[in-house]
Amino acid sequence: MAIVCVGSVALDSLKTPSGERTEILGGAASYFSLAASQFTHVDIVAVVGEDFPQAHVDTLAKRGVGLAGLERRPGRTFRWTGEYGFDLNEAKTLKTELNVFESFSPKVPAELRKAEWVFLGNIDPKLQLDVLGQIEKPKLVAMDTMNYWITGHLEALKKVLARIDLLFVNDSEARQLAGESNIVRAARKIQALGPRIVCIKRGEYGAMVFQPAGATGEDIFAIPAIPLHDVQDPTGAGDSFAGGFMGGLAAIGSVDSLSLRRAAVSGTVLASFTVERFGTDRLVSLTKTEVDARFRDFGKLTWHGVVEGGLNGEPRPGHA
Amino acid sequence: MAIVCVGSVALDSLKTPSGERTEILGGAASYFSLAASQFTHVDIVAVVGEDFPQAHVDTLAKRGVGLAGLERRPGRTFRWTGEYGFDLNEAKTLKTELNVFESFSPKVPAELRKAEWVFLGNIDPKLQLDVLGQIEKPKLVAMDTMNYWITGHLEALKKVLARIDLLFVNDSEARQLAGESNIVRAARKIQALGPRIVCIKRGEYGAMVFQPAGATGEDIFAIPAIPLHDVQDPTGAGDSFAGGFMGGLAAIGSVDSLSLRRAAVSGTVLASFTVERFGTDRLVSLTKTEVDARFRDFGKLTWHGVVEGGLNGEPRPGHA
Repeated sequence: MAIVCVGSVALDSLKTPSGERTEILGGAASYFSLAASQFTHVDIVAVVGEDFPQAHVDTLAKRGVGLAGLERRPGRTFRWTGEYGFDLNEAKTLKTELNVFESFSPKVPAELRKAEWVFLGNIDPKLQLDVLGQIEKPKLVAMDTMNYWITGHLEALKKVLARIDLLFVNDSEARQLAGESNIVRAARKIQALGPRIVCIKRGEYGAMVFQPAGATGEDIFAIPAIPLHDVQDPTGAGDSFAGGFMGGLAAIGSVDSLSLRRAAVSGTVLASFTVERFGTDRLVSLTKTEVDARFRDFGKLTWHGVVEGGLNGEPRPGHA
Repeated sequence: MAIVCVGSVALDSLKTPSGERTEILGGAASYFSLAASQFTHVDIVAVVGEDFPQAHVDTLAKRGVGLAGLERRPGRTFRWTGEYGFDLNEAKTLKTELNVFESFSPKVPAELRKAEWVFLGNIDPKLQLDVLGQIEKPKLVAMDTMNYWITGHLEALKKVLARIDLLFVNDSEARQLAGESNIVRAARKIQALGPRIVCIKRGEYGAMVFQPAGATGEDIFAIPAIPLHDVQDPTGAGDSFAGGFMGGLAAIGSVDSLSLRRAAVSGTVLASFTVERFGTDRLVSLTKTEVDARFRDFGKLTWHGVVEGGLNGEPRPGHA
């Protein structure tokens, strides 16, 4: 049930209303793998420069992240500098230095080519396709993307979409990709491009999972994010969500409707931990017991076991 | 279990990507009462001008809305003109003509002063307070407000807040009222101003209900909105939500945690119907059977009966 994840490993410098950090461990593959490794083994395929601190390598290794596919190349590591305003809603990118990431040509080590679970992080769709070509017979391929690729590399992106099972995408990207403002219709249009499952990330508002309609009609699952008293740094929330989602799914080992719903909850739980501290700090200190407790608590937040019998019906068992 | 609702009855002219309507029935009290009357009797206290069409009066009367408190005064009816863009996210107000609403001085008819359930729609907090003074001994008082009153009439608003049980407010208004960007802390600050229950409306993202912490810790309920394939006109969604919520609550007759959760679902259901057609069209044609079916279906959308036993636990009964 191991996962292969391709994506960025970066040095992030950022500022939020809660403080400031310089050159901390960042990048989609870092957040994804630290989150997913709560549930299963993850191998990353990524590139860093000569200047990448050994301490960051150790951080990933200590959490069991497989680093055989972490290439170290001459030059400097990918760097991102950003800041968040009062409402923590959106990162303002101050600087992006691609460095060695610019010529990234992902090579999946031979021993990982039989991987069943694959996550294609937000990189050039051409590279995503290239990675897919290196995996023999995956059970489930998920991917992330962003407006940059939708705007400028749509044809390549569509080629990847045609070959994957699960797309993680945020509201506005989904609308842009589908050319459709209604989010339900947008998700259905995206499904028609390839991915059987579309997961819409809505930040502090939660997430929706669209599956193909089943015997009992439409299969849409909608959950809120976990309300938090203290959000220090939203960086990596989406990647942690995807990591918790994929990790949970791979740990269960199946992709039926129920498993996908559980996976969405585990993604939500992991994202909620990430944003409580800067960078990957919280993910690094996180224990299985903490994850499990918050997973179970989710029931209390969303328990609606009230609806089955109608407005005045008997509630079914739950967290009344 | 009857509800007294004070608020606006208006003539709305509006334009959305789905079409255009002129001088249709609008106003918070109209949406609220048509939604709540699915569950219980509602009396409105409002004012209209001489020009208010009898057809609109008949529409309310046919749904059983009590009109003893609907005053007809010399002059023209309150009119609102607005339009929505591509994403239907926010109404752009093109024109507001207060007309007879400007000198509205709500008088609660003698026979309604014993009302147990009271909804103070979004009007001048001085008038809200005045209405409260006319009700003898309410069981639950809910209110709505908006940024205009928070900005310019905060002292009067705080006097009302100190005397009510339940505040309906949207995200940004809650942040503004509390002077706090974190929505959990904002809700807790608002509770400290008076209302035991704070319901945060998040539009297409759903709603959250904050209750006082109980024996098992914090009591926060978070639910998504119902995903819809076709939203024609978002006008009145918030008022229909409040109406469905209060109507459901009054029909159950209690205000414990479970009842408030059921009420939030019934509010969500009513709002979802409203936006599927223009103005009050859908509310007017809506049947008890349709409401009940969508109420029960809500379980399928949010069913997470997966979490109790942890990631690999046995799901509890539900809509698997």
